[in-house]
Amino acid sequence: MEDAYTGAMKGVILSIARNATIVDISHQINPGAILHAALIIRDAYCFFPQGTVHMAVVDPGVGSERRPLLIAADGHFFIGPDNGIFQPIIEAQTKKEIIHLTDKNFFLPRPSNTFHGRDLFAPAAAHLLSGVKPLEMGSPITDPISLDIPSIRKTKTSLHGQVVFTDHFGNLITNIHASEMSHFANRKDLEIQIEDLTITGLQKTYSEVPKGHFLALFGSSDFLEIAVNSGRASNRFRSAGSSGKKAGTAVEVRSSNPLEPGI
Amino acid sequence: MEDAYTGAMKGVILSIARNATIVDISHQINPGAILHAALIIRDAYCFFPQGTVHMAVVDPGVGSERRPLLIAADGHFFIGPDNGIFQPIIEAQTKKEIIHLTDKNFFLPRPSNTFHGRDLFAPAAAHLLSGVKPLEMGSPITDPISLDIPSIRKTKTSLHGQVVFTDHFGNLITNIHASEMSHFANRKDLEIQIEDLTITGLQKTYSEVPKGHFLALFGSSDFLEIAVNSGRASNRFRSAGSSGKKAGTAVEVRSSNPLEPGI
Amino acid sequence: MEDAYTGAMKGVILSIARNATIVDISHQINPGAILHAALIIRDAYCFFPQGTVHMAVVDPGVGSERRPLLIAADGHFFIGPDNGIFQPIIEAQTKKEIIHLTDKNFFLPRPSNTFHGRDLFAPAAAHLLSGVKPLEMGSPITDPISLDIPSIRKTKTSLHGQVVFTDHFGNLITNIHASEMSHFANRKDLEIQIEDLTITGLQKTYSEVPKGHFLALFGSSDFLEIAVNSGRASNRFRSAGSSGKKAGTAVEVRSSNPLEPGI
Repeated sequence: MEDAYTGAMKGVILSIARNATIVDISHQINPGAILHAALIIRDAYCFFPQGTVHMAVVDPGVGSERRPLLIAADGHFFIGPDNGIFQPIIEAQTKKEIIHLTDKNFFLPRPSNTFHGRDLFAPAAAHLLSGVKPLEMGSPITDPISLDIPSIRKTKTSLHGQVVFTDHFGNLITNIHASEMSHFANRKDLEIQIEDLTITGLQKTYSEVPKGHFLALFGSSDFLEIAVNSGRASNRFRSAGSSGKKAGTAVEVRSSNPLEPGI
Repeated sequence: MEDAYTGAMKGVILSIARNATIVDISHQINPGAILHAALIIRDAYCFFPQGTVHMAVVDPGVGSERRPLLIAADGHFFIGPDNGIFQPIIEAQTKKEIIHLTDKNFFLPRPSNTFHGRDLFAPAAAHLLSGVKPLEMGSPITDPISLDIPSIRKTKTSLHGQVVFTDHFGNLITNIHASEMSHFANRKDLEIQIEDLTITGLQKTYSEVPKGHFLALFGSSDFLEIAVNSGRASNRFRSAGSSGKKAGTAVEVRSSNPLEPGI
Repeated sequence: MEDAYTGAMKGVILSIARNATIVDISHQINPGAILHAALIIRDAYCFFPQGTVHMAVVDPGVGSERRPLLIAADGHFFIGPDNGIFQPIIEAQTKKEIIHLTDKNFFLPRPSNTFHGRDLFAPAAAHLLSGVKPLEMGSPITDPISLDIPSIRKTKTSLHGQVVFTDHFGNLITNIHASEMSHFANRKDLEIQIEDLTITGLQKTYSEVPKGHFLALFGSSDFLEIAVNSGRASNRFRSAGSSGKKAGTAVEVRSSNPLEPGI
């Protein structure tokens, strides 16, 4: 950080919950890139202990009427703005409680209009860690703001998805989950198309192709990714889903044998 | 970090004070940018619990005669080089104790000439956390080095300040504090001038202007900032106060009604 | 991080060892830069408390046959891939135990092929912290993969080394250790040559030369470095040992008096 913002948030947490263990997930989400943040929370949260409070502050609407939310789902808590940032959690969990944080006793006194991460979310998270019950802090709602998460399209012999973000290694992460592969009778005859590049077959690991070669595989969160062994796939596809801000580059998975019947 | 430096500092702290909670504030201060660091400490420290030790290691004079300091003020401790980095704390607090750290028992044995962060400040901070009293570690001084913090200039109808740093979002943070607005009889008729750009009025939050538009507001630390809704104001003012290393771009706040009397 | 990877690793650790203290050393090692990582571990580890577990995940061979290792040496533990990343530790310590981690009970269930940092190393580290003994987790080996660490060459009147990495400040860190200076009868008549630049003499600290001037000194880890007072030496030597990926720029230390006998 070039500023005091995240440090101040942690100071607020420790001032209320002195024994909190604070873990940084990412401070490299582009401002306003709600989808990118949503996908990172989705990929990280379940590896933490039950009862963890996950805070997210990509918050372009700060200071406006957008509501501060607390979500309890899957044994975890999520605190942040009502802008769709927790949409993947809300979609995936049938049992969940969504609470509009309204009780100012759990915020900093005289909160600013521009930094609810420090003034609302951090103190609410710390009070939760200190034993305050979610329903003491606000009221349940059922109409959280939705995020437009790109969906995949299917034909008999193909799946059409897109790049949703680029990881630290320059791998292009798509929205095509491994479970979608049941769409194909035979996973051995697949081709992956991204722009003018055709990749044949799916690998298990990066080193299965020569250095510098493109490959496709299902990554550690079970989504299809386009990678280069010992290189950065993102260098070739400059416009690809950077931080989720623009529509991602289209990615197609298809059966290379057009006669193969889809299931 | 591309090196072992901050990791080693944390190792030193934990070797002495095993239960220390360590929080990173910023590792993105340009080398030598003492003013930038000073402002970040000023903005962050008060959100931490009383008794916190704040360490700052922008230290171009390391290994020379410059003194290692410990400052006790406002219920917090500050450890770092005597180069003005704690000037905003010293200026703001009438009750404070400034101690020249001299007792080598609280440093690492055989300290290096180039890394007092690891060899002097980190062990001193950890000993302080472990219960050593400040006066056991050195002697009080009254002549700490001053930092030339840009001041603001006033006319009857205007305030003249400057950009002092750029935050993570590209907002240009100035040295004009909200309390200075009492200079104007009427906050509704204000104009803000930065280079050739005139901004009319002050907003409360970023989303009060259309996306891509410039605005001026008092940010979360109560200083005037120039921002762009969903954009980076710093992209237009490339030379603006980058990390506090160069004289910041001038910013003027003036009454747009020249007949309005200043107070 | 632009992704969930390091966050997930920390979640895994805390899920197993709830009271672990986690310290980040570096997330700015270029992918595949094993030597750079190895040198940072070498420079950082000894400042941590005895019993610390040091994890390293520069792991281009993930998912292949490369073994996951645990090394116990010098009162510390090291966990990571068998690719030479711990070579400086193995070389320096005569007493050490190198264990091939084989017991899947100490890994996450169903580990991925692409992220052993999260699925193997993090849980093994956490189990170790929780009291599991190294030999319960695998079997000793004696043939760890070696890393080709650049060595220095000596003539009667000179030492020939190279830049091995560039630090956060743009200082060029070489592989010439202070202890090698015993090669010279007289440290006062030394010249340092890097490409077309000749530096006369060794300084103790950066501010001993005017601002903007080059100097050579032994840094805080006791290796020779080429620096610029208040500047970035790396700006002049663009190709110099960036992250240890390419052969480093040659650096020569020589007696400036050719008649001086070498020892």
